[in-house]
Amino acid sequence: MDSPVPSASLLAAIYLVAITAEAMSGALAAGRRNMDIFGVAVIAFVTALGGGTIRDLTLGRFPIGWTQHPEYVYLVISAGLLTTVVASFMGNLKRVFLVLDAMGLVAFSLIGCSVALKMDYPTIVVIMSGMITGICGGILRDVLCNQVPVVFRRELYASVSLAVCALFLSLRALGIDTDLNTAISFTAGLTLRLLAIWGGWRLPVFSYHQRWE
Amino acid sequence: MDSPVPSASLLAAIYLVAITAEAMSGALAAGRRNMDIFGVAVIAFVTALGGGTIRDLTLGRFPIGWTQHPEYVYLVISAGLLTTVVASFMGNLKRVFLVLDAMGLVAFSLIGCSVALKMDYPTIVVIMSGMITGICGGILRDVLCNQVPVVFRRELYASVSLAVCALFLSLRALGIDTDLNTAISFTAGLTLRLLAIWGGWRLPVFSYHQRWE
Amino acid sequence: MDSPVPSASLLAAIYLVAITAEAMSGALAAGRRNMDIFGVAVIAFVTALGGGTIRDLTLGRFPIGWTQHPEYVYLVISAGLLTTVVASFMGNLKRVFLVLDAMGLVAFSLIGCSVALKMDYPTIVVIMSGMITGICGGILRDVLCNQVPVVFRRELYASVSLAVCALFLSLRALGIDTDLNTAISFTAGLTLRLLAIWGGWRLPVFSYHQRWE
Repeated sequence: MDSPVPSASLLAAIYLVAITAEAMSGALAAGRRNMDIFGVAVIAFVTALGGGTIRDLTLGRFPIGWTQHPEYVYLVISAGLLTTVVASFMGNLKRVFLVLDAMGLVAFSLIGCSVALKMDYPTIVVIMSGMITGICGGILRDVLCNQVPVVFRRELYASVSLAVCALFLSLRALGIDTDLNTAISFTAGLTLRLLAIWGGWRLPVFSYHQRWE
Repeated sequence: MDSPVPSASLLAAIYLVAITAEAMSGALAAGRRNMDIFGVAVIAFVTALGGGTIRDLTLGRFPIGWTQHPEYVYLVISAGLLTTVVASFMGNLKRVFLVLDAMGLVAFSLIGCSVALKMDYPTIVVIMSGMITGICGGILRDVLCNQVPVVFRRELYASVSLAVCALFLSLRALGIDTDLNTAISFTAGLTLRLLAIWGGWRLPVFSYHQRWE
Repeated sequence: MDSPVPSASLLAAIYLVAITAEAMSGALAAGRRNMDIFGVAVIAFVTALGGGTIRDLTLGRFPIGWTQHPEYVYLVISAGLLTTVVASFMGNLKRVFLVLDAMGLVAFSLIGCSVALKMDYPTIVVIMSGMITGICGGILRDVLCNQVPVVFRRELYASVSLAVCALFLSLRALGIDTDLNTAISFTAGLTLRLLAIWGGWRLPVFSYHQRWE
């Protein structure tokens, strides 16, 4: 059985941090909609593991990753439920939380690329696999919470995922060793995301309000 | 070809009642959004057979159940369209309808567990397979009708699905005969759901409205 | 590798026009929600290729069509981004756009039927495959833009898809040559859709506002 986690043990550790952080972000979103604790558990699960699920479906990669790793399921549901208890103390942790989320985005993107590369998909599909893994969990969270996905409107977020995937593939084409490449891409992506948050960097917005359709 | 319906003929009969009841619940939801009769047919189909579809995708179980059972497709679409005709008389049937829906929830959950058990998935995945089958149809219905899924906020509903799956697996581990186990789990789950409706039992709600993300 | 496009070169050409038109319709919908250009690219992609993706998942047909055709991905993303530049000039093109969209609907439906026929699915599944290909892109677009799918409420749209699929299968059962059949079904479907637009034809609507659930 192929693990969804690259062999690099650093990335594997970051993956665990990432799904935990994403589960907590999902739980907070559920709390904003006054969901019950079951809803919290579902949204936590979907936010953390939904991106990888959609990636595996898109690539036709069965069995789907988390079905072979019950420990991930227990981890994200526990993290989601724990969040309902500690949420009131988390205001002070905003910065920690944003950094964890950024690490998750970058780690997910690199993992998504690795999975599609192993399956010999074309380059554009490898990049999309990285981006799907990175951002689809958040999209599912927002759809289930009945709002327009924030990823389509936030400071550079999906673009960071795209940049990480493109950098990783470029260095790979240059023959750089995979572990070194992973370290470089991870660091560059994390830096870009943090700069974007603190600088409030955004992509240009397209507003269209002509009425004819 | 593996049927999505367990051999127990009682459960098979309940399955037909369940998808019919779910199709009717979908049609009523579509009517609340003033959809046309095509929209009614789609929502009826998705509510009744969408949970099993998502389960089969998640488990990598192809071909998907209903594609091998055209009669189910005709049944749920007919039930949905018929509902547009009889809806005005259904006010008096509220209690019947809630009981049918509860039977559907419990039957779907047991069927979902059976399917995953046959495929040798880990216990947590078996339980999730039962819950996905039980509640995802309703979640899809609510997403397509543009509202926060009611299952995340209603009286014990998903929890009943969880309890049924857990009871079924526990009795199975004790070596109880499958048909007896099915009958016990079904009865217990149905009783719990009906008690929850009449008592207005709910899970604790998590409300979170701090503004920092 | 099986192409999602039938051999008839006319239909193949129409397919390219269709995914371009759908990508542009997705971009305009994203603009109405003030998404950034990344959001525009995603919605364009999902609107154009999402229907085929859901069809392939439903039929268990891997690898999914567009993952083997990177040129389609580049085409629809380019069309979506280009739309942000030319949108202000498109008001005068409303009629052209509606015709392109109608061609897309009909071409997608025929392609969806062909794909399921080759896989020997039952008739009702073949028809649903055509309709899924024809309309699910638009449904995903509307869900991601947080509105009730317009296809459930618009002038004859999904019904046109249904009529095209039914006509195609009927002529096929009569032994008509596939290319001739495709030409007839395409022309008939396009005519029906354009008549529906200009005549404002709609299906009956089901409104239900009793409060008991």
